[in-house]
Amino acid sequence: MNLADNLAEESWELLQRVRERAPLVQNITNFVAMDAAANAVLAVGASPAMVHAVEEVAEFVTVADALTINIGTLSSAWVESMRVAARTAARLGKPWVLDPVGVGATAFRRKTATELLDLRPTIVRGNASEIIALAGLAQARQKGVDSTQTTAEAEASAMLLARTLGGTVVVTGAVDLVTDGTRTVRIANGDPLMTRVTALGCALTAVTGAFAAVEKDALLAATAATAVFGLAGETAAKAARGPGSLRAALMDTLHGLDAAVVRAGVRVEASSPST
Amino acid sequence: MNLADNLAEESWELLQRVRERAPLVQNITNFVAMDAAANAVLAVGASPAMVHAVEEVAEFVTVADALTINIGTLSSAWVESMRVAARTAARLGKPWVLDPVGVGATAFRRKTATELLDLRPTIVRGNASEIIALAGLAQARQKGVDSTQTTAEAEASAMLLARTLGGTVVVTGAVDLVTDGTRTVRIANGDPLMTRVTALGCALTAVTGAFAAVEKDALLAATAATAVFGLAGETAAKAARGPGSLRAALMDTLHGLDAAVVRAGVRVEASSPST
Amino acid sequence: MNLADNLAEESWELLQRVRERAPLVQNITNFVAMDAAANAVLAVGASPAMVHAVEEVAEFVTVADALTINIGTLSSAWVESMRVAARTAARLGKPWVLDPVGVGATAFRRKTATELLDLRPTIVRGNASEIIALAGLAQARQKGVDSTQTTAEAEASAMLLARTLGGTVVVTGAVDLVTDGTRTVRIANGDPLMTRVTALGCALTAVTGAFAAVEKDALLAATAATAVFGLAGETAAKAARGPGSLRAALMDTLHGLDAAVVRAGVRVEASSPST
Repeated sequence: MNLADNLAEESWELLQRVRERAPLVQNITNFVAMDAAANAVLAVGASPAMVHAVEEVAEFVTVADALTINIGTLSSAWVESMRVAARTAARLGKPWVLDPVGVGATAFRRKTATELLDLRPTIVRGNASEIIALAGLAQARQKGVDSTQTTAEAEASAMLLARTLGGTVVVTGAVDLVTDGTRTVRIANGDPLMTRVTALGCALTAVTGAFAAVEKDALLAATAATAVFGLAGETAAKAARGPGSLRAALMDTLHGLDAAVVRAGVRVEASSPST
Repeated sequence: MNLADNLAEESWELLQRVRERAPLVQNITNFVAMDAAANAVLAVGASPAMVHAVEEVAEFVTVADALTINIGTLSSAWVESMRVAARTAARLGKPWVLDPVGVGATAFRRKTATELLDLRPTIVRGNASEIIALAGLAQARQKGVDSTQTTAEAEASAMLLARTLGGTVVVTGAVDLVTDGTRTVRIANGDPLMTRVTALGCALTAVTGAFAAVEKDALLAATAATAVFGLAGETAAKAARGPGSLRAALMDTLHGLDAAVVRAGVRVEASSPST
Repeated sequence: MNLADNLAEESWELLQRVRERAPLVQNITNFVAMDAAANAVLAVGASPAMVHAVEEVAEFVTVADALTINIGTLSSAWVESMRVAARTAARLGKPWVLDPVGVGATAFRRKTATELLDLRPTIVRGNASEIIALAGLAQARQKGVDSTQTTAEAEASAMLLARTLGGTVVVTGAVDLVTDGTRTVRIANGDPLMTRVTALGCALTAVTGAFAAVEKDALLAATAATAVFGLAGETAAKAARGPGSLRAALMDTLHGLDAAVVRAGVRVEASSPST
């Protein structure tokens, strides 16, 4: 497969498509990520809406172009809204993205994530510990919400999870991995300083919703979103003086990315099908 | 009327008054806007408090100088708090500002907004789509929370709404319009990049609360708040590299605005009474 | 006692320890502070988690290294979670920090704070008005959530509260005071512009949790956290153009603080035991 040959170009084309269509992305995300996620979605040219009340969540899905669900700060009321929203998206054939924040940390999160997986997310994005926990391959060693495991350790889990779901799984880390169980892509963009800014993974999840809204091939959408976001982060990190200025510069860079920077900067590598 | 002749000067005088009196502004706002709204209120020299629990919301209104209510991220519990808070403000004669975020998008929002309108907000601030939906003049074409209609399209709705309420209505957009149903002002400050930063409209609503706390003429308070905020945004945009640096620079500029910049920069135009 | 002679050096050592151990700090904080608190905890090298659902809050405390509880945006459901979390921390002997935001403002806050005090926080951090209200020494003159009283006015209250609790109390203001009822330290770091950025006190509370996680002497942990945070703020303020750039620069500076800056910049003064 020559998927990777074109991925820098494809990433640029998808970013342009997001900017032109300005898809409406509904996010049920955590309280920490609300600001960063909304700003990142705006910075790529899409329109974010944070709507979670059970009274309106389904109605809103009918007008949204994509849905993202993030379990970072759960409560029972929100879990009900998540279920209703995901069910509506699944029924309407709209793409939806699951971010299983800290899923290995508590029984409540495991239960919630399991229920949401039954509703077949189009894309799941998490760190290595989260994807491993989700795949049930290993006893999660996750302590908090940050990852203690590497992308390589999570690869088998990601493939298993993708095949079980019939969906696409993204593992973000020093190297990012995107797989639909058959095709696998590795992305070498990003910068370690990004881990010192809160909610950037959650913001990427929301941005992934924007890309999935304009591209039916979920592997391609997830890859482009992850590459573009990582490229913006590494570009921003070059001039940043620390995590505070990195965050502002990331939004600036996402907003201003042009063809030359994306074509030259996206670093992807595709594996042969492993089966 | 020669309202506009003095509006730059009036804006500067009201900003000074906010800085001197540091009014306490209680905000029941959405989760995305909490940070931006609190920072904007601090940046103009007032004191923000985000208090929404039904157990304490009325008690807090009694000590606050103004109240703002924003329906951006609703839930049933918060709607009850909004009602109690607005009723208390109305009873005590304290100014309160309504921000009908995404009111055209769902039945839950329309119902909530309708109930809150009955409690007679001093000022309503929204984008064109929101004000049109609120005035019930047109079938709302609003998809998400961003506006798809222009200020000019919303003018008749704004005037109708202002007369019905006996209040002041602000429509923000490329040009902002402020009307009390008789007097109408247009403000040409602001910058298009501001639409790429989340919650700046919500932040302006909170800042409008600060101005309404120090000036009984709601049209004047709303005009000064909108002009000062827009001026800070356009000044910040000149040096910003994108939406991330714009947001930080907006807070810096709001905090540092001086008489010369405000007097020279505020661009307002008053219409003759249209009846 | 020669506590103060070594406090700059101790502050540096504790900051290094936080960076090496990267303690997991669980925060039940308010909606305004979520972003700033998480970013500050990351900036000092620790790992934040915002977990408040009653279904998982106790389970999470068992894996966390410290807990912080902030009553800034209360609701009944969260109060229950706060109680459960604090009780679990107390039972497991894990350090926990209480931030009684606006405690003098409403009966609901006073009641909640009183219940939480019964669960013996390791450290209480508030502004002068909050500490005075908490100590019950004076009728609180607190209007909103900002302080109208000085650190000096709060000193007796802080000492009484510390002795009653058997804990450490931090009063932040123009000068910060840290006392365990016997030992008292004053810290002269910080910058007035910090009061124009929302939630920096709340962010310090979360950072104090990170320091308490790596140092059993709570007075020392609280002093180091307060001094390091204040030093980062004053360093950042020198180059900031206002509150927006200050906030970003504060995170940058916290992340980059080195031995030379900390040793030279921390300004502490210890009092003799006052009994």
